[in-house]
Amino acid sequence: MKALVYHGPGSKSWEEKPKPVITHPADAIVKIYKTTICGTDLHILKGDVPEVTDGRILGHEGVGIVEETGSAVSNFKKGDHVLISCITSCGKCSYCKKGMYSHCGNGGWILGHLIDGTQAEYVRIPYADTSLYPIPAGADEEALVMLSDILPTGFECGVLNGQVKPGDTVAIIGAGPVGLAALLTAQFYSPAEIIMVDMDDNRLEVAKTFGATHTINSNQVNVVDEIKKITASRGVDTAIEAVGVSATFELCQAIIAPGGVIANVGVHGKSAQLHLETLWSQNITITTRLVDTVTTPMLLKTVQGNKLKPGQLITHRFKLNDIIQAYETFGNAGREKALKVIMTNE
Amino acid sequence: MKALVYHGPGSKSWEEKPKPVITHPADAIVKIYKTTICGTDLHILKGDVPEVTDGRILGHEGVGIVEETGSAVSNFKKGDHVLISCITSCGKCSYCKKGMYSHCGNGGWILGHLIDGTQAEYVRIPYADTSLYPIPAGADEEALVMLSDILPTGFECGVLNGQVKPGDTVAIIGAGPVGLAALLTAQFYSPAEIIMVDMDDNRLEVAKTFGATHTINSNQVNVVDEIKKITASRGVDTAIEAVGVSATFELCQAIIAPGGVIANVGVHGKSAQLHLETLWSQNITITTRLVDTVTTPMLLKTVQGNKLKPGQLITHRFKLNDIIQAYETFGNAGREKALKVIMTNE
Amino acid sequence: MKALVYHGPGSKSWEEKPKPVITHPADAIVKIYKTTICGTDLHILKGDVPEVTDGRILGHEGVGIVEETGSAVSNFKKGDHVLISCITSCGKCSYCKKGMYSHCGNGGWILGHLIDGTQAEYVRIPYADTSLYPIPAGADEEALVMLSDILPTGFECGVLNGQVKPGDTVAIIGAGPVGLAALLTAQFYSPAEIIMVDMDDNRLEVAKTFGATHTINSNQVNVVDEIKKITASRGVDTAIEAVGVSATFELCQAIIAPGGVIANVGVHGKSAQLHLETLWSQNITITTRLVDTVTTPMLLKTVQGNKLKPGQLITHRFKLNDIIQAYETFGNAGREKALKVIMTNE
Amino acid sequence: MKALVYHGPGSKSWEEKPKPVITHPADAIVKIYKTTICGTDLHILKGDVPEVTDGRILGHEGVGIVEETGSAVSNFKKGDHVLISCITSCGKCSYCKKGMYSHCGNGGWILGHLIDGTQAEYVRIPYADTSLYPIPAGADEEALVMLSDILPTGFECGVLNGQVKPGDTVAIIGAGPVGLAALLTAQFYSPAEIIMVDMDDNRLEVAKTFGATHTINSNQVNVVDEIKKITASRGVDTAIEAVGVSATFELCQAIIAPGGVIANVGVHGKSAQLHLETLWSQNITITTRLVDTVTTPMLLKTVQGNKLKPGQLITHRFKLNDIIQAYETFGNAGREKALKVIMTNE
Repeated sequence: MKALVYHGPGSKSWEEKPKPVITHPADAIVKIYKTTICGTDLHILKGDVPEVTDGRILGHEGVGIVEETGSAVSNFKKGDHVLISCITSCGKCSYCKKGMYSHCGNGGWILGHLIDGTQAEYVRIPYADTSLYPIPAGADEEALVMLSDILPTGFECGVLNGQVKPGDTVAIIGAGPVGLAALLTAQFYSPAEIIMVDMDDNRLEVAKTFGATHTINSNQVNVVDEIKKITASRGVDTAIEAVGVSATFELCQAIIAPGGVIANVGVHGKSAQLHLETLWSQNITITTRLVDTVTTPMLLKTVQGNKLKPGQLITHRFKLNDIIQAYETFGNAGREKALKVIMTNE
Repeated sequence: MKALVYHGPGSKSWEEKPKPVITHPADAIVKIYKTTICGTDLHILKGDVPEVTDGRILGHEGVGIVEETGSAVSNFKKGDHVLISCITSCGKCSYCKKGMYSHCGNGGWILGHLIDGTQAEYVRIPYADTSLYPIPAGADEEALVMLSDILPTGFECGVLNGQVKPGDTVAIIGAGPVGLAALLTAQFYSPAEIIMVDMDDNRLEVAKTFGATHTINSNQVNVVDEIKKITASRGVDTAIEAVGVSATFELCQAIIAPGGVIANVGVHGKSAQLHLETLWSQNITITTRLVDTVTTPMLLKTVQGNKLKPGQLITHRFKLNDIIQAYETFGNAGREKALKVIMTNE
Repeated sequence: MKALVYHGPGSKSWEEKPKPVITHPADAIVKIYKTTICGTDLHILKGDVPEVTDGRILGHEGVGIVEETGSAVSNFKKGDHVLISCITSCGKCSYCKKGMYSHCGNGGWILGHLIDGTQAEYVRIPYADTSLYPIPAGADEEALVMLSDILPTGFECGVLNGQVKPGDTVAIIGAGPVGLAALLTAQFYSPAEIIMVDMDDNRLEVAKTFGATHTINSNQVNVVDEIKKITASRGVDTAIEAVGVSATFELCQAIIAPGGVIANVGVHGKSAQLHLETLWSQNITITTRLVDTVTTPMLLKTVQGNKLKPGQLITHRFKLNDIIQAYETFGNAGREKALKVIMTNE
Repeated sequence: MKALVYHGPGSKSWEEKPKPVITHPADAIVKIYKTTICGTDLHILKGDVPEVTDGRILGHEGVGIVEETGSAVSNFKKGDHVLISCITSCGKCSYCKKGMYSHCGNGGWILGHLIDGTQAEYVRIPYADTSLYPIPAGADEEALVMLSDILPTGFECGVLNGQVKPGDTVAIIGAGPVGLAALLTAQFYSPAEIIMVDMDDNRLEVAKTFGATHTINSNQVNVVDEIKKITASRGVDTAIEAVGVSATFELCQAIIAPGGVIANVGVHGKSAQLHLETLWSQNITITTRLVDTVTTPMLLKTVQGNKLKPGQLITHRFKLNDIIQAYETFGNAGREKALKVIMTNE
């Protein structure tokens, strides 16, 4: 089969690889139908994720069709249309039992990381019963690719951890795909105001059409001042950090109201200053989270009930065979006005 | 001043009464601007609420303008536009401290019940600082009358107690004003499906325009069968009882899914059968509640943020002087297609 | 092997049966070391549980040693000492994923009910990885038999559902083994008062040594009056029904404080009156639950940390071969002053 | 009357001051019976709290007897024995209504800070109805002085925010009075293990008698290594920071398990490094809080129910007239083996 293979920092190719086979009774082999590229894939290609070694097939998102199942798989059978979760969950370790699949003792984020991933014609999914989700008949499968990672990430790490409530004021720092996913899913809870902060006017325009009540270009104005104006100096109830750098995390500390929550979504490479000298008495909460994908069944229901339209995040479409070109587009997201790109295995 | 006075079962009149005066340092006198009639007022007039005695001014809803304040009132001053809560809260008893204002040791539901109420030109509000809410400049004051009782009742007793969540299936039994208030506020949490059940086709039509995804006329079909069809036999996650009779409470028991919540909103005059012989193992929760109005500030914010449009519930408008006629209309709600009637003190 | 076999209402025998074998990759065969008898087993023997058919091996509690595992079992291997949960959980259906193992689509309460149980020399445990728990080295295995059913039942259905909190006043109606399990585990949350109600003076004496602050013999005094005295007429914060008859459930309604919780633990055969005519405005919560055993790992930790001493519930010990005599003793619990009886497979 | 008066950094005196008078209808004047000294008082005396100005009477803890009440006070009358909360709550601002008294728009921490405090023969308490608590007849009033500040601080900021649960492993960094208060109240929730960390062997000995299961002297061993040994390398579920310096806050980050909570209690003067480069994916929660004293009524109940014995924290007793000597002892807490000192107004 063909697959997108990592060959060390800066090097990747679309090449022939052996088709995966069942190696454990709980495995399934899935024929990929549609997949996408994540910002994390770009990090891997830069060499920022050293656990990923030469020869690894990348990708941790996608939908497909079950090709074969191991003897212990009971929820799925050949021919079933399935959503692949970016997080593999064994369903039987102590972390899985408490819904923290991200720290599964036998899985977690392994696809396109520690084992071969979804940017290929076929993928092996361990613990298929608890790592795949059935796609309802008639669903928009392309849109559901957004449920592999980006929607649960924005929702669980940003919105749920951020405790967004009706009537609240929410700020989301970063209008990339995950920040926009937080914007879409924050609206499940009817906050009164959602303030979107970014440096890219195009993304802020998109944010407006997605439901942001205010947008702030942090290159043009002082964000703290603007937010104080909007909130009568009180600050926001929830600040969602969806960038992953110290400066934006420290911005969150400057805009949070007493009693508020800072929910970190971004992947950080460095530490940040935590201003305990002012925050110690402010009754705030800070959370971090690697997505657990525990809300995937619920997100599927909201898509079915038309409360969530994840297809809005897709800006470009390619054949799977043209994945190198898709990487080119996604790697120049600003210039290309790209959010999520879809590759279809035709 | 003029006021609507109860004179025993079946008897009321619009008559001259002394203007109220401050009797305690925490009191305020409010000039009524707009008020409305509640189903409970009709119950009182039938003689169903024996604590209400001859001579009592009825009414527990309304907006107005502060006329005078006692020496201990600090949140309000003459001229402030205020929303009157149906629940009086002293803010300093053990129940108020835990947010259960309905059981306030010094207040609770007393307006138009144990003390004179809001269907008058003026009303005395005890514990004004904690029983009135400031109306933001520019707000639609008429719509805010719905926040005195009906919206917090539907929301707190139905939606919050019912634990409505994104993706859920909710059934609301009873499409009267409070059931419709539950329908409007349930949507704060983005359930996938809201099934409205009533016997009145007009109200079910209204429910559809208010966001119900399914409506069932219980006079025409078997409700349990219909709900089983909609939910693939599973039942609903939340059943909200907004009628107040045994039959509808028992219906809720027949349609609730394992793990679901039955939230009682209705005022009941009789006991109901609780089918513990089947429900003991179904992991369900049943809640009751007299509205606490603890969510009033939040509801005000959702109205300001345009997430809630309570004015939709108003079907008829009168001058306060024509309140007898307003009672006539509201008392024949089915024939008049009346939901809430507004009386304005011009 | 030898096993206790049900032969229709009133009939059981200790007889030879084939040793169970692995029938699914997720199965394990466990050699029973210690088991016990549940009140439910007595109900089955009376014919009250018609799903149990002639030939069924009874019993859903016990500890043992893994004898053999299916190919998909990864948490356990031959020789491991294990605690058997009364609830079988597949770990991969929608109910298991939300921690409601009691309603597992592939399991639930099936042991000694729909499949052969633990009152035998060997038992087959389906979904072993998610239905067995490892016993720490050096643990008191006899005491852990109480964690198969009785402790999680009292804790989850009574204490957790009852929302027991520090400083609260709790009433537990019924001082049988499950009521006493609720008494022991309620103390995890340091309520100020625990009132135990029963008709058996011996059990009330036991309750005192287990931590009850007050005991009431319902044959001798008026329970409602006594509880009003203890609570200055306010009622209790939590009422735990651990009997399973209408009268005790109705008693809970008479003693609950505004804002309180009635947690039903008892298995009911009939409906009860729910006094909505008074309770509609009392802001109460009523819960039902079949035990999920989702807290078993936590209960194991409290036993290891010496916060819970479940061995206190054991009053009689037998050889497994003498199980008929053990049934005799347990069946006359009042006369024999029996709580839980242990049978050891030597 | 006599009072302990601050006269700028390093300077205090026990001197004559005018007896306070009612200045607002919600005030009460309380005759101090017993008071104590807080670590914060020492900070003020060093000049670390510049809002405290020359002439201020210090102290924010104590019990006393109501001497006089304003016209709006209804919960208390002359002669009532009362507990004074360190936090003044108006009961009617938006923060008070959500139980965040620490940020009360009209109060918060003002006693001995922005208005005169409790280290005097009399004190004026604003918003008396919501800032004083009735002392039950027969209570140990001396022990209740611990409920003015230290117990609610350890409990709310450490234990409640730290989400301590039955079976958990908890580490408390700092065995001073507040750390020990957290230790006492953590036991309300029956954690399996409580590890106490300090540099003072005497305080660690006290911690053992108060219920610590493990103690670590951070001067003698590597704390991270020790805690890894105790927790099988997993880390702790809850880490409570009760010192207030960057190093101990960073220690908490090194010992927290995935999914755990770091609850900050300490008063910090500087920022700390937050290691987002490792913590971003660890699903942790960090909280800060100025005590709200919202749990004071509950703490009173646990003292009455004998679940909490706060008198254990008192090591030294003085006459109020000897307060200068009491400061001397408390200021040399290590050498004097002092925890809390009590001064009695005889």
